[in-house]
Amino acid sequence: MKLLRVGTAGAERPALLDAGGTLRDLSGTVADVDGALLADDAALARVRAAADAGTLPALDPAGLRIGPPLARIGKVVCIGLNYHDHAAETGAETPAEPVVFFKAADTVVGPNDTVLVPRGSVKTDWEVELAVVIGRTARYLESAEQALAHVAGYAVAHDVSEREFQIERGGTWDKGKNCETFNPLGPWLVTADEVPDPQALGLRLWVNGELKQDGTTARQIFPVAEVVRYVSHFMTLYPGDVINTGTPAGVAMGRPEPKPYLRAGDVAELEIDGLGRQRQELKGA
Amino acid sequence: MKLLRVGTAGAERPALLDAGGTLRDLSGTVADVDGALLADDAALARVRAAADAGTLPALDPAGLRIGPPLARIGKVVCIGLNYHDHAAETGAETPAEPVVFFKAADTVVGPNDTVLVPRGSVKTDWEVELAVVIGRTARYLESAEQALAHVAGYAVAHDVSEREFQIERGGTWDKGKNCETFNPLGPWLVTADEVPDPQALGLRLWVNGELKQDGTTARQIFPVAEVVRYVSHFMTLYPGDVINTGTPAGVAMGRPEPKPYLRAGDVAELEIDGLGRQRQELKGA
Repeated sequence: MKLLRVGTAGAERPALLDAGGTLRDLSGTVADVDGALLADDAALARVRAAADAGTLPALDPAGLRIGPPLARIGKVVCIGLNYHDHAAETGAETPAEPVVFFKAADTVVGPNDTVLVPRGSVKTDWEVELAVVIGRTARYLESAEQALAHVAGYAVAHDVSEREFQIERGGTWDKGKNCETFNPLGPWLVTADEVPDPQALGLRLWVNGELKQDGTTARQIFPVAEVVRYVSHFMTLYPGDVINTGTPAGVAMGRPEPKPYLRAGDVAELEIDGLGRQRQELKGA
Repeated sequence: MKLLRVGTAGAERPALLDAGGTLRDLSGTVADVDGALLADDAALARVRAAADAGTLPALDPAGLRIGPPLARIGKVVCIGLNYHDHAAETGAETPAEPVVFFKAADTVVGPNDTVLVPRGSVKTDWEVELAVVIGRTARYLESAEQALAHVAGYAVAHDVSEREFQIERGGTWDKGKNCETFNPLGPWLVTADEVPDPQALGLRLWVNGELKQDGTTARQIFPVAEVVRYVSHFMTLYPGDVINTGTPAGVAMGRPEPKPYLRAGDVAELEIDGLGRQRQELKGA
């Protein structure tokens, strides 16, 4: 299923994009798309039955904002340098273990919302990423199979990054990863049953219509199952947590000078096979 | 005021410790102690009036668990190496700018709850810290005065840290800061009006009755006002966000070998002048 949330920011209603491409209202079926829903097999079955029965009211998509496909996100765990080609372009060694950092859940916005270039920023960069949404509480997982059983679904994430803040201002990467609006998510949360192989997804990102990133999750150093298993040994993952699993090559930081960092007026577009497409205009904060 | 939350985990009720030391039930006055309350001057005035009138029902503290003094925490921003003596004991240079990392809000537990030593951990360390609770949305603040006007109150925080995970396993410090139960908070949220000078607070921590940390916020490299102002330029702070402002000298990592890291069975006790006292037993995860 493709689950989403539509409406004005902070007042989104749950919805579903059906197999025929029609937007359906889920607000009579479930309270919201959140960790509680993803952990509730009976509620998910109710959504599925309603979708199959074709009884859900259609919604007119015209002029309707798409919000983040998940409400009340607990935490956003991010994996750095997780593609061979991206690690190479940044000059970093291939990490021996997953590199972990955080984005605050309050950085998450809808897939087509404005992204704000922070005041004083000259190195705002793009990163298309496969986001994994957790559906079951995960502690000390032991196998890849067990890890995937804790995944509720997948979505497109934009891990917007300010490289000066991230790398040149001291401390950890978090300083350049948590500016407001820095994590567009969606349009949909695609349930895991519709993503048979998370390691076979093409990811692409354009700036002002020019293709900048064109990668595949086949080139992840640590695949989704290993990331979930590994992270569960350092922290507990809860339903409604998100893991951004890293970006392939092609970011501004990896290019020759003058590096083409994002500026107000630019337009970023992102897509992942089967997970939909995002479009953001950049504006000044 | 000293605001707190009492009851079983996940079902705490709001309460107040009055000037006479009596625990008072706030559940008839406000829904909870959270960011929404802290941003609501009228609701806070109602609490204050009820406290002054002496009409709040008394609660029997016997056997009553104290939870974290704040519900629905958004994010926990942490400042590293923020005391001259602690930076020195770790061998780090005095940072030129605040070092920022994150703890997930789901690591927050009550002040006397059990702290779990992660599986496989041999370097679980203690850190007593002054926590700052945000009461107003803060973006791009310009002065110390403005920063302090966005602070709702203060609390004791224990920034439990696994040093191998933090430093020896690749990536950022977050990997050693986010194990479950790693952020005991409370007992109280003391409103800012009762903390006239946040740079004049003694902080102490004991392990098994032995004094390990005995510092003062006077030795912070970046004082509270500067931390809040600085962080607001890299991310937006919202009511109900928490900033752990760093730890003074005396952690296990700073001692000669064999370093006395925490083990199951140990007892940590922490206090800050005017902000109350914590006591945690360590157990295996």
